[in-house]
Amino acid sequence: MEANIIRTGRVVLHVADLDRSRKFYVDALGLIETETRGDELYLRGLEEHNHHSIVLKKSSEPRVEVISYKVMSDSDLDRLEELFNAKGMKTKWLEKGSQHAVGRTLRTQDPSGMPVEFYAEMDTVERMLQRYDLYKGARIQRIDHFNCMVRDVEKAYHFYIDELGFACSEYTAAEDERIWAAWLHRKPSVHDVAFMNGKGPRLHHTGFWLSDQLSLIHACDVLASMGYTQNIERGPGRHGLSNAFFLYLRDPDGHRIELYNGDYLTSDPDFKPVRWDINDPRRQTFWGHAAPDSWFEEASEVMNLFAEEDETVMEIGEPTLKQRKPTFVI
Amino acid sequence: MEANIIRTGRVVLHVADLDRSRKFYVDALGLIETETRGDELYLRGLEEHNHHSIVLKKSSEPRVEVISYKVMSDSDLDRLEELFNAKGMKTKWLEKGSQHAVGRTLRTQDPSGMPVEFYAEMDTVERMLQRYDLYKGARIQRIDHFNCMVRDVEKAYHFYIDELGFACSEYTAAEDERIWAAWLHRKPSVHDVAFMNGKGPRLHHTGFWLSDQLSLIHACDVLASMGYTQNIERGPGRHGLSNAFFLYLRDPDGHRIELYNGDYLTSDPDFKPVRWDINDPRRQTFWGHAAPDSWFEEASEVMNLFAEEDETVMEIGEPTLKQRKPTFVI
Amino acid sequence: MEANIIRTGRVVLHVADLDRSRKFYVDALGLIETETRGDELYLRGLEEHNHHSIVLKKSSEPRVEVISYKVMSDSDLDRLEELFNAKGMKTKWLEKGSQHAVGRTLRTQDPSGMPVEFYAEMDTVERMLQRYDLYKGARIQRIDHFNCMVRDVEKAYHFYIDELGFACSEYTAAEDERIWAAWLHRKPSVHDVAFMNGKGPRLHHTGFWLSDQLSLIHACDVLASMGYTQNIERGPGRHGLSNAFFLYLRDPDGHRIELYNGDYLTSDPDFKPVRWDINDPRRQTFWGHAAPDSWFEEASEVMNLFAEEDETVMEIGEPTLKQRKPTFVI
Amino acid sequence: MEANIIRTGRVVLHVADLDRSRKFYVDALGLIETETRGDELYLRGLEEHNHHSIVLKKSSEPRVEVISYKVMSDSDLDRLEELFNAKGMKTKWLEKGSQHAVGRTLRTQDPSGMPVEFYAEMDTVERMLQRYDLYKGARIQRIDHFNCMVRDVEKAYHFYIDELGFACSEYTAAEDERIWAAWLHRKPSVHDVAFMNGKGPRLHHTGFWLSDQLSLIHACDVLASMGYTQNIERGPGRHGLSNAFFLYLRDPDGHRIELYNGDYLTSDPDFKPVRWDINDPRRQTFWGHAAPDSWFEEASEVMNLFAEEDETVMEIGEPTLKQRKPTFVI
Repeated sequence: MEANIIRTGRVVLHVADLDRSRKFYVDALGLIETETRGDELYLRGLEEHNHHSIVLKKSSEPRVEVISYKVMSDSDLDRLEELFNAKGMKTKWLEKGSQHAVGRTLRTQDPSGMPVEFYAEMDTVERMLQRYDLYKGARIQRIDHFNCMVRDVEKAYHFYIDELGFACSEYTAAEDERIWAAWLHRKPSVHDVAFMNGKGPRLHHTGFWLSDQLSLIHACDVLASMGYTQNIERGPGRHGLSNAFFLYLRDPDGHRIELYNGDYLTSDPDFKPVRWDINDPRRQTFWGHAAPDSWFEEASEVMNLFAEEDETVMEIGEPTLKQRKPTFVI
Repeated sequence: MEANIIRTGRVVLHVADLDRSRKFYVDALGLIETETRGDELYLRGLEEHNHHSIVLKKSSEPRVEVISYKVMSDSDLDRLEELFNAKGMKTKWLEKGSQHAVGRTLRTQDPSGMPVEFYAEMDTVERMLQRYDLYKGARIQRIDHFNCMVRDVEKAYHFYIDELGFACSEYTAAEDERIWAAWLHRKPSVHDVAFMNGKGPRLHHTGFWLSDQLSLIHACDVLASMGYTQNIERGPGRHGLSNAFFLYLRDPDGHRIELYNGDYLTSDPDFKPVRWDINDPRRQTFWGHAAPDSWFEEASEVMNLFAEEDETVMEIGEPTLKQRKPTFVI
Repeated sequence: MEANIIRTGRVVLHVADLDRSRKFYVDALGLIETETRGDELYLRGLEEHNHHSIVLKKSSEPRVEVISYKVMSDSDLDRLEELFNAKGMKTKWLEKGSQHAVGRTLRTQDPSGMPVEFYAEMDTVERMLQRYDLYKGARIQRIDHFNCMVRDVEKAYHFYIDELGFACSEYTAAEDERIWAAWLHRKPSVHDVAFMNGKGPRLHHTGFWLSDQLSLIHACDVLASMGYTQNIERGPGRHGLSNAFFLYLRDPDGHRIELYNGDYLTSDPDFKPVRWDINDPRRQTFWGHAAPDSWFEEASEVMNLFAEEDETVMEIGEPTLKQRKPTFVI
Repeated sequence: MEANIIRTGRVVLHVADLDRSRKFYVDALGLIETETRGDELYLRGLEEHNHHSIVLKKSSEPRVEVISYKVMSDSDLDRLEELFNAKGMKTKWLEKGSQHAVGRTLRTQDPSGMPVEFYAEMDTVERMLQRYDLYKGARIQRIDHFNCMVRDVEKAYHFYIDELGFACSEYTAAEDERIWAAWLHRKPSVHDVAFMNGKGPRLHHTGFWLSDQLSLIHACDVLASMGYTQNIERGPGRHGLSNAFFLYLRDPDGHRIELYNGDYLTSDPDFKPVRWDINDPRRQTFWGHAAPDSWFEEASEVMNLFAEEDETVMEIGEPTLKQRKPTFVI
């Protein structure tokens, strides 16, 4: 029986200065600060009833410790351990209590090398959805997805679909119908995770869902008012692929955040994954300015969870398919 | 093994004049007309890849023929038949081809007396999500839910949760914690169906999801421009319960339509159903004008699918709990 | 030579509790607090470069001290004095310094009995238009207009148009083409002041301009979050007359505030005033719920600036035309 | 006595193909087609009660025939003639009837060489403001301003302010406080005309006012749906200068159109023109992508109204100050 993964859960990012990060994530983007605990800052979106969806840990290097998925029940964790071990993947447990506010957690390095974690349980807190008096900045509602830059998208694609039960909503086809990028989901939205061909493993961005387009425009205004104009890397614009109305930001440590609106329901078994040719100019940018080179080249390094020494990052390798910045982007 | 219901699928409404209905649903509300076929008009929302989510059939009386749910696979239909028959409920099959664009369909009258239908298969058509040049009126994206006025909410609640696998997102508690109304879902949104205590069985409304608040405001403007001011029955306003930003309309035959924005994700097993006291003034109306009496008293009659004579409607009975219009509504 | 009145300037309201008012106007509606000075609270909108557009003075009774217009130059004040005296109206000067932040001011009781004030000069302060990080609540941009309930609209109409140089944008005609209400402007918008037939003289409301519809919807949400649901008296809705997208609020002392969006340019000499029949159902409400009785009957008392005793209010008399609440309002 | 210019009136553009232009301006941007008359297409915005604000004339070359201002009365035209002649500028009259729907018109070449026209009278037509059922695309409300690229901004600045009674809302200062660009208005908005240092005389763009930000975002979506992605030259973004939320488009002939939202009231004599240093990075782009080179270099050629041969354009010369694309633009 397949493990039941529900959705994207949380991301753990290493940052240099919690106060600096708080100003960006809480004051400018409007995330709710659940609590600060020593060197860790716990944040959540306005509708989230779980303790946090993002953990910022003070550290000397701006790395991604782990990206996490929530599963339906504790026994799903055992099923995942079994699966990973059967596939020859290393796993380790973090028992309940060893990570603040989170239950028993299973960690592994996925076939792309991304550090991934699964948990069934997280403390619940007050949902702020109807505390409109606290809304500010981008009014982030919830975490939505991860975008991973990996060396072999097809390997990731098959593992997540065949072994973990993800479904594909949209994908980009290169020569010979090789999959150059793919958008995969467990919750019936466009994605919980996307894989994009490139130097990896690296985390390209974490996506957060906004309830409307004007919150994204207002976020630009607020960011500019607060001196964060340079942190707006790309957008606003609309992707053809996923129909996302998007804004890409770089946080003060360089981690990339996507503010995202424009999803659709992908629940149906007869939903056919949308195929985009890599040479279709409307795929990347339905409209909007060309993405800067940094958007194609830069991404966050990720931790090697099984290294002998702490704080070891995964080695970055060249992609299987040609890594490219589409030439047609307007 | 439980049958896997995916989501609210479609509603079949009887109306007096297809042209009159087309003007309202297509010209004013912006639904896409998939096709008109004899005395039947098939409509869908902008993101819907299935043939239709609403069928309008020319008929002498404005009734609800059936409300429909989509299931994951054809075998789920057999499981449902088995369940219904075990519960002593009548069922009947409409074989593939007997209803246009829909596969094999199982019909029953649910424990509340609502005519309900299940299908696994519907023709797919072009999704118009990125045909922004065709957006107009309310820019309806997709069907979202049904709201049924029934005599015994708790009976419906237990059947849908215990037998059909729905989960409860929010509910209204009356004296002695009796459930006066309940919002139930299969897709991870606030609801696919709500049951409300009142004279029934009747369909109170069909809800459609809009991507943003301004589409709803623009819908008001368009409706007024086209002479439909009187068709706006209630709103715009926000419900405390469900956090919906809402507008209730009466179509030219009196069927009630809700335009709806403001949902949240309900995927998690640790999501606790939100309890609202029936005397909490913010439950019905977080803000907005008092609902008119018609909103509490009027609803569409529904067909008896198993009557000996065609066109027989279900008899309407008094509710178990006191039917009431909250006195506190501002 | 005619005096050059530029625009609606400010309103001076008496309120019982400055802290209570600050919570409403600053925290919920998002006005900028320029300063509090003893028993006076000075507020302005986000784009206003003048010191304030609203003064709240602590007082035992919730009255309107005066409504004010800004004129082009100091000599316009002398021209107005001459005009008023020629018409037999009393005037008095408040010399520069006697009112905080305002230059020399001329006060009179206009032909309707409204206490009116004119000034050419007010301290300038920082404009907050691009301080998006300070935007909150209704994001009020600027003061827009006054609405006065008076006994004889035609008398007011002729005085403001013939003597003060206002132009009419829209009006309501009752029997025999008598003017039942009129919208008059100096700045090229729909109005700086409107006169409405009713028991008067009273100030019906002060209107503030919002840059967009969503700020108004968000204001409803914020007000409800903060416990001000009962302060929302009417709306949101759209007037046919003036095309205003409106929300009417009652402040903690009962003064009525309109949040307003949807103006148009009225600069042209060939712009014909829009005539609305008093029996046209779309005049009051293009769409939206019926206005409550309070909206037709209640308004703020205004001060008699020339009474022998301080704190004397103008006596309220019956209107010339039938005072009525349109029966057609939906 | 000074002539009383009210506002920006209309622009007359030469285009190659009226059908191609209609698809862009009417179908995509949502302008109302007042009428097509031979080789001329007359368009207006949703709130405009005058016959047109843009005329598209079929012609072999994409030029600007004239930009026009509306004056208060016919006698203002005589005052302007007198002024222009006193300054040694050529003028000519187009008598009423010689231009469709427009009264007597005075034409001149202004000190920058821009072909300019003044009229007091234009036919009135139905205002479509409340015909929300006809709203589409960008929902353009009205014409707002012209932006002229000229060789000597200070010369233009002094002529329009000292002789024509314009006021300055904002300006850009280069070395030695030389004025590099200036925003000037007659109606109390940010501008009716802006002058920008560059190769000229040329018309950089014509600005149209939108009522809200979402209309601009929707315009992007509609343009992309219709295949006009390449016509989006710059934006969406926000200028620091003028606080405009902007989108720059190139019409099918290359004429530049600005969709514009975010104005403020500039009526007051104590409003101090906002000074922006040319090296302030937030001036051009409060936030948003760098403008492409085309935005700085390309503009529409303008007609020489007094040339001996028809269809002669004004010769383009180098600017007085250094023409530059700010290096800081992000």
